[in-house]
Amino acid sequence: MSAGVTRTLASYVVEAKTDDLPPQVRKETARAFVNWAGCAIGGSHHETLDVAIAALGPFSGPATASVLGRGERLDPLHAALMNGISSHVFDFDDTHLRTVIHPAGPVASALLAFAEYRPVSGADFVNAFVLGVETECRIGNAVFPEHYDVGWHITGTTGVFGAAAAIGKLLGLDAQRLTWALGLAATQPVGLREMFGTMTKSFHPGRAAQNGFTAALLAERGYTSSEQGIEAKRGWANVLSVARNYDEITQGLGERYELLVNTYKPFACGIVIHPTIDGCIQLRNAEHLTADRIASVELRVHPLVLELTGKRAPQTGLEGKFSVYHAAAIALIEGAGGEPQFSDRAVTDPSVVALRERVSAEIDPSLAPDAAHLTIALTDGRVLELFVEHAIGSLARPMSDADLDAKFHGLADPILGRERAQQVLDLCWNVELLDSAALVAQAARQDAPTDAHAAMAANR
Amino acid sequence: MSAGVTRTLASYVVEAKTDDLPPQVRKETARAFVNWAGCAIGGSHHETLDVAIAALGPFSGPATASVLGRGERLDPLHAALMNGISSHVFDFDDTHLRTVIHPAGPVASALLAFAEYRPVSGADFVNAFVLGVETECRIGNAVFPEHYDVGWHITGTTGVFGAAAAIGKLLGLDAQRLTWALGLAATQPVGLREMFGTMTKSFHPGRAAQNGFTAALLAERGYTSSEQGIEAKRGWANVLSVARNYDEITQGLGERYELLVNTYKPFACGIVIHPTIDGCIQLRNAEHLTADRIASVELRVHPLVLELTGKRAPQTGLEGKFSVYHAAAIALIEGAGGEPQFSDRAVTDPSVVALRERVSAEIDPSLAPDAAHLTIALTDGRVLELFVEHAIGSLARPMSDADLDAKFHGLADPILGRERAQQVLDLCWNVELLDSAALVAQAARQDAPTDAHAAMAANR
Repeated sequence: MSAGVTRTLASYVVEAKTDDLPPQVRKETARAFVNWAGCAIGGSHHETLDVAIAALGPFSGPATASVLGRGERLDPLHAALMNGISSHVFDFDDTHLRTVIHPAGPVASALLAFAEYRPVSGADFVNAFVLGVETECRIGNAVFPEHYDVGWHITGTTGVFGAAAAIGKLLGLDAQRLTWALGLAATQPVGLREMFGTMTKSFHPGRAAQNGFTAALLAERGYTSSEQGIEAKRGWANVLSVARNYDEITQGLGERYELLVNTYKPFACGIVIHPTIDGCIQLRNAEHLTADRIASVELRVHPLVLELTGKRAPQTGLEGKFSVYHAAAIALIEGAGGEPQFSDRAVTDPSVVALRERVSAEIDPSLAPDAAHLTIALTDGRVLELFVEHAIGSLARPMSDADLDAKFHGLADPILGRERAQQVLDLCWNVELLDSAALVAQAARQDAPTDAHAAMAANR
Repeated sequence: MSAGVTRTLASYVVEAKTDDLPPQVRKETARAFVNWAGCAIGGSHHETLDVAIAALGPFSGPATASVLGRGERLDPLHAALMNGISSHVFDFDDTHLRTVIHPAGPVASALLAFAEYRPVSGADFVNAFVLGVETECRIGNAVFPEHYDVGWHITGTTGVFGAAAAIGKLLGLDAQRLTWALGLAATQPVGLREMFGTMTKSFHPGRAAQNGFTAALLAERGYTSSEQGIEAKRGWANVLSVARNYDEITQGLGERYELLVNTYKPFACGIVIHPTIDGCIQLRNAEHLTADRIASVELRVHPLVLELTGKRAPQTGLEGKFSVYHAAAIALIEGAGGEPQFSDRAVTDPSVVALRERVSAEIDPSLAPDAAHLTIALTDGRVLELFVEHAIGSLARPMSDADLDAKFHGLADPILGRERAQQVLDLCWNVELLDSAALVAQAARQDAPTDAHAAMAANR
């Protein structure tokens, strides 16, 4: 099927109701939203965001929308941009493994900003979130891997559709106008992979959120666009990919949900060293290990680990993300692999440096990418062994709700304080029940009054 | 040469001085600016702009910048978008024939909005305009035709670079930051050709202006990006084109100027029927023809004319643009081919309809695309013949300054009135001499006080 891909997708988005969502999809929405909010709050004071707000804040319109984790308010389009940037700045957000799309960023960033612009119930928020993710991931499925391989940052190029669909849904667009919104999204893709390693990478999900939001606003007023923005001869899929499969977009709408194959990173670094960190934390906690009791650590890992993260003596926090030796040492000492474990402080800590020098690694081509084998010799002569078959955070062993809670606190507590962070966390888990989804954004502002939660809770 | 394409271009933009510009380049800047301003004012009340302002105006920041031809002010980023849209909405703007880029739209729309945000002298404005046009057209030269053929609207995809370079120049960015600005431009291309025929087409130059402006603002504050946004393996040229020639970007900088091969459309329709309209106007004026004296009109035209504009009985103004018969008739009756000649009024006028039914056309494959042969039989038995070898507006026979004046008045007088239009026209021709380029924008607002010109003139 080729004709009507865009229109078919648009009609589905227009018709889909919150009540149609299976319980596990609603549950996964809350998990994805918790994970996204934690990342956005945690990244909110990164230099990248300071620069972006300094540059573009002076151009903000009426400041109705919160920048999560900060004191500033901006117009909703700029807030969508900023929250999208901060949610990706640690590379710690969610991953749709099949396409490597980070789905929540473009969609949630637009939706939450919108919710402070016009009233949005929690139930409508959840439905729009699901539809946005479905839109971007299905379009991604249709063109992956060719589209990604040529050099597009697929989160930004498909995310603009996700944001347009999600905001278009909340605006109540009819199928004609939602089709135009997707056309306006198609014509503004964001993101080249060349930008990886610079601040521009995290610009991509933010700008995708802003562009999709803009597309929906224009379409609402009758700004016309193509009826076949995705599938036309000179439409998005043909121009931006050498291969495409439109059935991925149009088949099984409302029957299968891409959100159910979304994953969350437990550790703030490349996914290849996650099995090692996972194993180190498991052994540390089971045996109450301390650095002085550890004589040596021997790792057997997938070949990509040493290719990508073989740095023996990292000097900065960022370099630490590319050192499996540092990752193992810090995980054994601190029992975590969050952003604080990849700071300059962590990487230069003498006790961490001393332990990482006792870590060795060899590759084992028989291991799967989400597996690792650990052998730890203790100073008392005992030897501990652990085989991690599937790292925590993989599809086979997803993060539990409690894991997501811990991740959220690790990110949000330093910004909001433990108590406020818990309030925001509660609101995120229960977003579907809120009269107004905007309460989440308001509670996640750094200068929100501490008694705000009581008022918000009363509103539930 | 491959390494350093982006940096080489950025360094040129940083170093280039107004004093280095050859006189003919300065002169052509004024001509391009006159043409752009006329188009932007003339298109300013098109429904497309009404819709865009209704949708996005509520999100405008501090309203420092004028929307040409209208009463609204918006923040400079939104004003750049709106002026870019209106300058393209009639498809009447300039054309860099080698790449079919419409160069002025993305660059001038950003620059003039900027000039109302921070002080910009006329001399600096001219220099930035030239550099912006040079940047976008050289990048276009490097990837044309492959990039256009695959389906990119090259005005939007290269225009974002042009706007980033022009605004970056006015911001005084150093080579490092201008390189980042070009990287931020590379990652936000705008425009699929699938959007042609909808309002989204004219969105492209506007959004390119806005995106390039944004890129420069971010880079100014230190928002990092790729150092090789254009030429990297996963940079703009490799991802968006199957072929590329970087010498087009880096060779002869400051020695040849793409602005010198820019062209301006005399008639508000597809270029293929320009020779016919040109010939009809020439014969009408030379012979003082009136419709009642014309028995028949026989045209011999390039084959593309009937393929693209062979509509015998157009019913609307837009359809009239696709009818060489209507174009000939209205040109003979009204002596023009502007937007009013392609209105519903013109197309349904009984005397026009009667004359167009006496127009016939046959193709002649021996004719060049900018040529046509006309034979007009008069009721008194005389037969007039004319061979148009190169239509007015072609590179071989460019529009004169007087032609550009007439075009400007045709577009601007209905919006601003003749007197005010003349004031704006004078300011455009003399932009290089102005203490503040913002005077042009202020004079071109619909509600500008009529005595504003005196104050402005005193400022020159």
